[in-house]
Amino acid sequence: MAYKPSIPKGTRDFSPDVLHRRNLIFGIIKEVYELFGYLPVETPSMENLETLTGKYGPEGDKLLFRILNSGDFLENVGRDSLKTTQSSQLAPLIADKGLRYDLTVPFARYVVQHRNELQFPFRRYQIQQVWRADRPQKGRYREFTQCDADVIGSDSLTNEADLIQMMDLVFSRLGFGVDIRINNRKILWGLSEVCGITEQFSAFTVIIDKLDKAGHRQVMDELGAMGISGEILEELEEVFLFKGGNSEKISLLADFLKASAVGTKGLEEMRQVLAYHQHSGTQNPVVVDITLARGLNYYTGTIFEVVARDIAFGSLCGGGRYDDLTGIFGVPGLSGVGISFGADRIYDVMSELHLFDNQSTPGPKVMFVNFGDREELYSMKALKEIRAAGIAAELYPEPAKVKKQMSYAGARNFSYVILAGDEEVKNQNYTIKTMATGAQQTLGMDELLAYLKP
Amino acid sequence: MAYKPSIPKGTRDFSPDVLHRRNLIFGIIKEVYELFGYLPVETPSMENLETLTGKYGPEGDKLLFRILNSGDFLENVGRDSLKTTQSSQLAPLIADKGLRYDLTVPFARYVVQHRNELQFPFRRYQIQQVWRADRPQKGRYREFTQCDADVIGSDSLTNEADLIQMMDLVFSRLGFGVDIRINNRKILWGLSEVCGITEQFSAFTVIIDKLDKAGHRQVMDELGAMGISGEILEELEEVFLFKGGNSEKISLLADFLKASAVGTKGLEEMRQVLAYHQHSGTQNPVVVDITLARGLNYYTGTIFEVVARDIAFGSLCGGGRYDDLTGIFGVPGLSGVGISFGADRIYDVMSELHLFDNQSTPGPKVMFVNFGDREELYSMKALKEIRAAGIAAELYPEPAKVKKQMSYAGARNFSYVILAGDEEVKNQNYTIKTMATGAQQTLGMDELLAYLKP
Repeated sequence: MAYKPSIPKGTRDFSPDVLHRRNLIFGIIKEVYELFGYLPVETPSMENLETLTGKYGPEGDKLLFRILNSGDFLENVGRDSLKTTQSSQLAPLIADKGLRYDLTVPFARYVVQHRNELQFPFRRYQIQQVWRADRPQKGRYREFTQCDADVIGSDSLTNEADLIQMMDLVFSRLGFGVDIRINNRKILWGLSEVCGITEQFSAFTVIIDKLDKAGHRQVMDELGAMGISGEILEELEEVFLFKGGNSEKISLLADFLKASAVGTKGLEEMRQVLAYHQHSGTQNPVVVDITLARGLNYYTGTIFEVVARDIAFGSLCGGGRYDDLTGIFGVPGLSGVGISFGADRIYDVMSELHLFDNQSTPGPKVMFVNFGDREELYSMKALKEIRAAGIAAELYPEPAKVKKQMSYAGARNFSYVILAGDEEVKNQNYTIKTMATGAQQTLGMDELLAYLKP
Repeated sequence: MAYKPSIPKGTRDFSPDVLHRRNLIFGIIKEVYELFGYLPVETPSMENLETLTGKYGPEGDKLLFRILNSGDFLENVGRDSLKTTQSSQLAPLIADKGLRYDLTVPFARYVVQHRNELQFPFRRYQIQQVWRADRPQKGRYREFTQCDADVIGSDSLTNEADLIQMMDLVFSRLGFGVDIRINNRKILWGLSEVCGITEQFSAFTVIIDKLDKAGHRQVMDELGAMGISGEILEELEEVFLFKGGNSEKISLLADFLKASAVGTKGLEEMRQVLAYHQHSGTQNPVVVDITLARGLNYYTGTIFEVVARDIAFGSLCGGGRYDDLTGIFGVPGLSGVGISFGADRIYDVMSELHLFDNQSTPGPKVMFVNFGDREELYSMKALKEIRAAGIAAELYPEPAKVKKQMSYAGARNFSYVILAGDEEVKNQNYTIKTMATGAQQTLGMDELLAYLKP
């Protein structure tokens, strides 16, 4: 019986304190989503594997958690081949379902499946867990929560403007400064076109995405190795190195991209998004960042990324426009744009910035000390009235030593302790102790309720 | 591309309307739990299978969803044996983890793992999904949500009294009448003792639990077949058939159980719980039901079950006391008691009783019609002010035909539509249309805000 229980690596238990803080974050995100007209949707934790596989690239497929078919899962597997079969060949035969890997693909599946019930443009938000069989490390978990908002069925750039407002408002309410970086995949396509390497577009975006981490020199070398001619490469370097305001960046790009129709279209979209933004204003700066690429290949227009201003922590929120997400499920032509907050990483940033320090868990407000028998019944009556007034309260369940009960009350962070002993029962009143100050006073029921009410 | 996406059987998508109603239920349960001093905890969706297996009986083990190990899961499986191996033998070799089957076992694991950080008695609530590979049918899903509250580390019956108050308050707030049935596993043990069949106790409880469904005659026959003597069987039948108040039932039982120390102890506990209940009172009746058994064998004292009064729908909430739940994880002697609401079944009851009929989804309050270009920018400024006042609002993203925009507003259930066209921009005001009445008026920004504020 010395068995010591544990949980799977990369997963977490959330105790009340941590959960309280996490819920502050989810609460703010949900509030902002609803303020902007987004409606909640939830999808199942498990999807059919045919919905999930092939949507996240070969690496993503490997990170899917597969659910073993129930019952006799080997029933229809050819036994003779089992001896030599590979895990990757057997997996599809014995597992039909997988755990959600993100919220975007299930949402696309949801839209296709329910398209006749939905009003387009459809604004939905979804705050649910996702699972990835990734190698766990600091800040990376196998089960974590995503907070997505997407609008689908509209290619208007007012949607991008709204999403910028939403990201700004969420971080303003969370209480720390961020930069909202924006770019446009059409601009990136334009760059690759001018460089003559459109057929290597995906690799191109992966390389420039590394400018932050790998450093400038390495990135330029890798780009050179792609076959970009020396002169163009120098101009490209100039674009990457340029440190100016948003409109100066756009002017520089307009010149560089003038030969690319797609790139020029991307710049126009960028100009319009910035015009909306300037008109409405944000608390946090919106910065055009031409090196922002976002990994996912389904983005086709504006892309976003939010990073903390005072601490290097990677992306806290990201997203973008995709012109054909539901195409993978047979319904082409529905353009959408969305963002996703990484609540776990936001939690870590807020911890590092000590933003939770004054956020103690709001314990129940009132504890009644248990003096046993008659006093217990007397306390229970009061308890019922206090709870009916909406005040969280409990009775210590046993008539333990008062010292033990008081130490429990202290550890649980109660605001008040009520002592209703022999004397109080006789006089039909209650002695209330304010835990922060230690002050005590004796009150009748009505006074007590008035005193406790917020 | 004619592939039609679907979701695994027994799982569900939740659209905004349904989710809104579900969240009403979860919100009430959470509110009541917190009012009674219970704190939230969350555990991972997946647990190590050694935590789960053997805890739910052989039937339960079969219903566990197992997660295929990631990577090359066949690596350490003896290939030679694969040809003849059974699914049940292979499963433990290729799946270390399983999805949560209920919230009780993970909670016991949590308590043991975190016992040095917790304050006992520890009151926790947990509202999370669970998964069972059960055959899906009406009202039974493979993924559903449980809402548990347990207090652990206290054997005081004041906890039972609190839980009765909580069940009563939840259903009062949900708005339909219920019966709160209570029994005590010690009384059931006492009955089996008097009948001389303690070694068949588990089977005995399963049989009498069927009195509701299988009918009286069949149950008595099955009990007779267990070897209970004719005279005792007649007395037992009398006990089952007895239709009286709680105190009369207890008197009858006191006599029948006088030879059983355990049974008599159970009756004493029942008397005390009822005394607390009579002292505090409830809106819904608390009914002693000697035929209530609850399937789970870990219960050792009071057991609860709540059923709707006006509609036959099975158990909506259940629970009980267990003296040694954490013993399975090596920490014996922690007594606990808890309840669990079945939110899905409650949802179905409320639908059947038409309690949601007046609960339309609170759509965002305000939609701005989009008239394009200059008007759009004018609307965006107002939108920002309205949202800053905490009022959910959106701009229709495209300058589509007004008729189309209005029909979207109607379908989405907006309270107000604001028209800010050429004329309004010129006069710096807004025409607001109340959707319920069709009435229109033209207001300045300050008037508009005052009008929209709740």
